[in-house]
Amino acid sequence: MPKPPPFHIVFALFPDVTHLDFTGPHQILSRLPGARVVIASQAGGEIEAEGLVFSRVARLADIEHCDLLCVPGGFGVTQAMADEAYLKALRRLAAGARYVTSVCTGSLLLGAAGLLQGRKAACHWAWRDQLALFGATPDPARVVRDGNVFTGGGVTAGIDFALTVVAEIAGAETAQAVQLAVEYAPDPPFHAGRPETAPPAVLERVQAIYDRGMDERWAAARRAGEALRVQ
Amino acid sequence: MPKPPPFHIVFALFPDVTHLDFTGPHQILSRLPGARVVIASQAGGEIEAEGLVFSRVARLADIEHCDLLCVPGGFGVTQAMADEAYLKALRRLAAGARYVTSVCTGSLLLGAAGLLQGRKAACHWAWRDQLALFGATPDPARVVRDGNVFTGGGVTAGIDFALTVVAEIAGAETAQAVQLAVEYAPDPPFHAGRPETAPPAVLERVQAIYDRGMDERWAAARRAGEALRVQ
Repeated sequence: MPKPPPFHIVFALFPDVTHLDFTGPHQILSRLPGARVVIASQAGGEIEAEGLVFSRVARLADIEHCDLLCVPGGFGVTQAMADEAYLKALRRLAAGARYVTSVCTGSLLLGAAGLLQGRKAACHWAWRDQLALFGATPDPARVVRDGNVFTGGGVTAGIDFALTVVAEIAGAETAQAVQLAVEYAPDPPFHAGRPETAPPAVLERVQAIYDRGMDERWAAARRAGEALRVQ
Repeated sequence: MPKPPPFHIVFALFPDVTHLDFTGPHQILSRLPGARVVIASQAGGEIEAEGLVFSRVARLADIEHCDLLCVPGGFGVTQAMADEAYLKALRRLAAGARYVTSVCTGSLLLGAAGLLQGRKAACHWAWRDQLALFGATPDPARVVRDGNVFTGGGVTAGIDFALTVVAEIAGAETAQAVQLAVEYAPDPPFHAGRPETAPPAVLERVQAIYDRGMDERWAAARRAGEALRVQ
């Protein structure tokens, strides 16, 4: 069997990323034929993510090119939206990539980088409306495709997203093989995974936690949206 | 609101662990009220897991006690089954824990440590039969509970497992809140997540990959099972 050509994947991280946003897709996309996967950030070195520390993180500036760019989300998105050097790195890598992708609130960073104008995109349900600030159309689907832009919904949607991307790049049979290998036959103990299906008390409780950082996030998203229009 | 008492969780890692086996549960169990989560290994320091490097890993010997022990799986299980010091650490921590748990082939390590005798347990489908070598009853369910032992099936089953554990410890509403926060309303693009539902060609392809290390794994599991009977 001929060796598959290398397929370069970059996860563009930032401090206080939600680790499952990229570890889920990483586990799956790493199994793409020829996959060369790099996790990178502005500073490189180490990234702390909700109690886990990832080391040997590359510097975004040191990466010349990738075939697939994936931007995860997390509470650190508020700060990352204001980091012009980070957004510039996203723009540069996206320009040469075959696929531009995100998971969870990572789509807000694609948006802030100006990469979602006129596109529909997914996002974590609690922050989805903010996509409109970047000229994108918020889409409640778990995985959204618009041209070469694939976006996933909140956190665990990254697994469905990654299998969809594997199917696109390497075909359905390869995606099914990966699904079988990671035994992805989900069976949640409750049906509370969406605001529409969660009990009202549960939704209220989660919303109350998010409300603490919500004004700041909206303000950051508005500033990032305005900066886009000035460019 | 009174501060919840600390609840100590230890993920007992080993080289060549499958990272999603513990990052999924980590993301979810970290949200338990009072959660103090530590990732640990025999050597401590760094653990490499399928291309990701986790640093600031504690040494198992330095951990006196935990409330919940969780053992993930991965290709490194074959070597870890033969690591008597690692298995001893599992036995010591399990003896003081309220909950003894595993994800994927981590149940083979619980088994090799003698912690599953007379218990039913889950495991990744491809290696599930090996549980019998340790006096355990293989159970095809995605999440299996037997007393204070909770085990999850392959890789992604760790998410269903972790939500089940959160419900047990903190109640259904807390588990539902975490499910909503991580937007766990799974929607796989295919139905290939189990050997029973995967197309035969897909099953054959994945089995062929596993076959490469299968004899070695069976041999290691047999030796570990025999060592148990000698003790």
